[in-house]
Amino acid sequence: DATDTCVAMSPKITGELLRQLRQAMRNCKYFSEPLQAYIVPSGDAHQSEYIAPCDCRREFICGFNGSAGTAIVTEQHAAMWTDGRYFLQASQQMDNNWTLMKMGLKETPSQEDWLISVLPENSKVGVDPWIIAADQWKNMSKALSGAGHSLVAVQDNLIDAVWMDRPERPSTQLRALGLDYTGMTWQDKITTLRAKMTERKITWFVATALDEIAWLFNLRGADIEYNPVFFAYAIVGMNTIRLFVDLKRLSDPALRDHLQLDSPSKPELSIQTFPYESVYTELQAICAAQGPKDKVWICDKASCALTQVIPKAHRSAIPYTPLCLAKAVKNATEIQGMKMAHIKDAVALCELFAWLEKEIPKGNVTEISAADKAEELRSQQKDFVGLSFPTISSVGPNGAIIHYRPLPETNRTLSLNEVYLIDSGAQYVDGTTDVTRTMHFGTPSAFEKECFTYVLKGHIAVSAAVFPNGTKGHLLDSFARAALWDSGLDYLHGTGHGVGCFLNVHEGPCGISYKTFADEPLEAGMIVSDEPGYYEDGSFGIRIENVVLVIPTKPKYNYRNRGSLTFEPLTLVPIQVKMMSTELLTQKERDWVNEYHRKCREVVGAELERQGRKDALEWLIRETQLIA
Amino acid sequence: DATDTCVAMSPKITGELLRQLRQAMRNCKYFSEPLQAYIVPSGDAHQSEYIAPCDCRREFICGFNGSAGTAIVTEQHAAMWTDGRYFLQASQQMDNNWTLMKMGLKETPSQEDWLISVLPENSKVGVDPWIIAADQWKNMSKALSGAGHSLVAVQDNLIDAVWMDRPERPSTQLRALGLDYTGMTWQDKITTLRAKMTERKITWFVATALDEIAWLFNLRGADIEYNPVFFAYAIVGMNTIRLFVDLKRLSDPALRDHLQLDSPSKPELSIQTFPYESVYTELQAICAAQGPKDKVWICDKASCALTQVIPKAHRSAIPYTPLCLAKAVKNATEIQGMKMAHIKDAVALCELFAWLEKEIPKGNVTEISAADKAEELRSQQKDFVGLSFPTISSVGPNGAIIHYRPLPETNRTLSLNEVYLIDSGAQYVDGTTDVTRTMHFGTPSAFEKECFTYVLKGHIAVSAAVFPNGTKGHLLDSFARAALWDSGLDYLHGTGHGVGCFLNVHEGPCGISYKTFADEPLEAGMIVSDEPGYYEDGSFGIRIENVVLVIPTKPKYNYRNRGSLTFEPLTLVPIQVKMMSTELLTQKERDWVNEYHRKCREVVGAELERQGRKDALEWLIRETQLIA
Repeated sequence: DATDTCVAMSPKITGELLRQLRQAMRNCKYFSEPLQAYIVPSGDAHQSEYIAPCDCRREFICGFNGSAGTAIVTEQHAAMWTDGRYFLQASQQMDNNWTLMKMGLKETPSQEDWLISVLPENSKVGVDPWIIAADQWKNMSKALSGAGHSLVAVQDNLIDAVWMDRPERPSTQLRALGLDYTGMTWQDKITTLRAKMTERKITWFVATALDEIAWLFNLRGADIEYNPVFFAYAIVGMNTIRLFVDLKRLSDPALRDHLQLDSPSKPELSIQTFPYESVYTELQAICAAQGPKDKVWICDKASCALTQVIPKAHRSAIPYTPLCLAKAVKNATEIQGMKMAHIKDAVALCELFAWLEKEIPKGNVTEISAADKAEELRSQQKDFVGLSFPTISSVGPNGAIIHYRPLPETNRTLSLNEVYLIDSGAQYVDGTTDVTRTMHFGTPSAFEKECFTYVLKGHIAVSAAVFPNGTKGHLLDSFARAALWDSGLDYLHGTGHGVGCFLNVHEGPCGISYKTFADEPLEAGMIVSDEPGYYEDGSFGIRIENVVLVIPTKPKYNYRNRGSLTFEPLTLVPIQVKMMSTELLTQKERDWVNEYHRKCREVVGAELERQGRKDALEWLIRETQLIA
Repeated sequence: DATDTCVAMSPKITGELLRQLRQAMRNCKYFSEPLQAYIVPSGDAHQSEYIAPCDCRREFICGFNGSAGTAIVTEQHAAMWTDGRYFLQASQQMDNNWTLMKMGLKETPSQEDWLISVLPENSKVGVDPWIIAADQWKNMSKALSGAGHSLVAVQDNLIDAVWMDRPERPSTQLRALGLDYTGMTWQDKITTLRAKMTERKITWFVATALDEIAWLFNLRGADIEYNPVFFAYAIVGMNTIRLFVDLKRLSDPALRDHLQLDSPSKPELSIQTFPYESVYTELQAICAAQGPKDKVWICDKASCALTQVIPKAHRSAIPYTPLCLAKAVKNATEIQGMKMAHIKDAVALCELFAWLEKEIPKGNVTEISAADKAEELRSQQKDFVGLSFPTISSVGPNGAIIHYRPLPETNRTLSLNEVYLIDSGAQYVDGTTDVTRTMHFGTPSAFEKECFTYVLKGHIAVSAAVFPNGTKGHLLDSFARAALWDSGLDYLHGTGHGVGCFLNVHEGPCGISYKTFADEPLEAGMIVSDEPGYYEDGSFGIRIENVVLVIPTKPKYNYRNRGSLTFEPLTLVPIQVKMMSTELLTQKERDWVNEYHRKCREVVGAELERQGRKDALEWLIRETQLIA
């Protein structure tokens, strides 16, 4: 079963670190009074999903390196909250100084309740205001003050104070993207943003999300693995643009030219550059000079530190910034780039699968070596930059662990007897990919085929769905599950997420999920994933994922002139027919599979031909035969 | 088109009334300082959907009698906010003293924004705290005080002060329901409630919703048309039960016996009765005597007046009370009663349709006379109490007006050339019904049939859906729309609502809607409606509505032992085959129709036989022929 795939890792020894941290908590150099507790969230100052090594403070203090978790240290206790994906891993990575708080279990107290139960009266609870979001601060602060304690902002991070060999904040080379990749100059993006600001009577906009800043200025970096972003802030006024970034990065003449740093075309498009760290004092100065009616836009997920600089009366905290919304709707150039990236990605995957077919029988291919091969093949494609997330390469029972990532201790060999699931993607300069295929290289069982077919039915139901303009993605989620539900099956994750264009592989504000969240309506030009699955614990995992583009469509009627939308798959990798119980498919579904495979063969076949990759082309042609 | 079905109504003359109201606003007898504005919401003190004549204060002051709307009167202005369903009606019913505020249009200010734009500095805005919900009070108060004004509670209602011939609050005879109707004694309901209170460490529960109080005590009244409820409050403690109701109503010995008023079986099941009006002072006394850890449960939609009696530290405001949740899950007796009620209701409708078939060609049947006939036929059934809502009986273009209700001025004659839609239901002592059928008595057009078939496909998709335990109803909404969406069509209302058992025809906490609301998961025993539609403005309306029961089902697999649910139709009235384009149905859908009609014939046929209603039986048999 799933547990036997995980082997013991040695926990991090944290006794001495905790002693030092507690000393810092008592040290009035950091805060005017001793702290009775200190909270260590897992994020960075930009609420990034992936973070740089210098920001892995929660991992540093407790040893647990999963993507989600919050550590809290008091004078007597040390506790770490994480969710069900990570219970086993966290329990193996943390030593006895730590209590694992299993979120989602009834008996597990919330962080607030736990703090209230262990703290002495009138305690001070410290947190770095840069790495706690404004809304989280508000909730925690309210709960603590309701119980007589107080949440206090400690400007110097206490983990950094005891972290002797903490890595530097990355400052990788910046890459300017021309109009042929972005389809819109940064100047036009600024002008569009200002039009939105005028419309909503906003005088300042503070950009804190790294992908929004990268998108706005048509720049990319490599500060965070998998995400082509760079550490920066931006503040845009009606006549000024302030960019906060390590100034050393702006010495390249081509870059200075791209940003028109030395000869701006118009004064209102002149970018003033400031050191990354000075965003706080600059924003303070801006707010101090504000008129009584001035309003500042900031995302409600931005850091508490920056948010609280803006006086409440002037603050307009929004769930999605205008940049987030504009970035989600790809323009014609971006769509063309995403299509090209997906064709190159398909070439690499066709080659991988053809190679696997030959190599697996020899018994030498493992989850890790298959993932490495996939990366090698992708890296041969033009404009390849890197992976877009860690490859999930999983065999048999490992496939049932939804967030699996092969490690030397868990690495299984691919065989003719087990299902193989690979969820992978890359960053190319022209676009970002994310694709999952589930294959069997021998003979799948009837149950594996049955489940695969239900998942395929769900995938098709979303991909072929026609829906009115203005429909939110969460209304499509049940389409992906209906066939599984009919047989008593389901999967416990969402169906899709937004995908950036040479940007983060997960982006807002849209998605397809049963979780009701404030997603924005789908619009033509948006790009999301369609990835239903089924996971049989201890046996196998199935997921079929394409990246799909929202496009307009014209059905027979047009009720109230609202117009209709549907999806066009950008991913063009064959879906294994061997895994299908075709007799469970309707004629419409069979037609969809045939048309999809026709397109794969036509488009990817031409590129394989051009690249002279014969084995892969042969594989593609065989895998895209018509089904009856 | 739709507008020509509405004829001019004369507006209410309100000049003198407004003069008197403004005088009352200035009169310090009601509030210590003059009021610059007075808000008149449309609800009663229990946030009832339907209200008694004495509570129609908004209608009294402005003339508009739709179900939703808020009037606000200032020294200079009078404005009334309502939604798109009522723009035309409101503009016809209100005179020139009133400005119609069309909600949902971009240019229409919110009530708060409008008040802030017209009020002089530092204004007092009055409202009756009994008819504004606590959450609405909070929002309005916050917005006003942010602009330097204040929202103030005026204990005496100022509309009542100027309403000379205001009707008395109804005090109809109460009816006690025995165990054969309720399946559970009120004593057991109290015990179950107290167990929930203990579980959540709650010491007091305040019941304010009329249907919850009726359900709790197994009592019914007739204070509000269509809803078998009575004006009351209840406060349940761990050892006490307080019932607040017009005490004259409790003189009947059978009723006193039912409530064990004179000889309670146990002290903690002894009901103390108080006058309806004394709930405020009693709750005040209870709160004054509370221990420091006492917690009071009250619905967050309860009136501001009652909510604010409870000190904030002791108040636990919840979206759905434990009574709301318990009431939604029907027990075996209630389910049996609902089934019986639906069989009787089907008898009446079969008879109606057989009668219409004969009478329509004579040209004498109108929307109103058809509705009257339906009521007459229902009233012949055992334990009939009254209608459960005003019958929607609509011909041709009137059918496209979703909330249509025939009036002498709009009354159309049924003919062989137009689609007829009838949405109607009744209260029987054993259950509540709500059914919509759309029929053509001549030859429907190809487009009418096509739309009907898409609606039918949606109806079946929901009715036959299999879904895991714990699924919320809103996740099923898109199933009802998929066939319409595929052709570019849609309908602009939800798909279903909870249905009470000899209680309100609309009840929480479940529903099936695209609007994301905090609905509770569906559970076996819950009863909801399934009513997709299509409305072609100016031509016809289509809706197919059954009341359906949530039942457990056992598909092939049982993922994570969650169990699965589906629906069983309680409504058993044939769906007109003449309106179907059967070639658009899948085999599964045809099977569903045939099985549904088989059951209608078997169950309702037997009852028609028993009641000797031959014409209707003949009609039923003809209308339930197998389709191929």
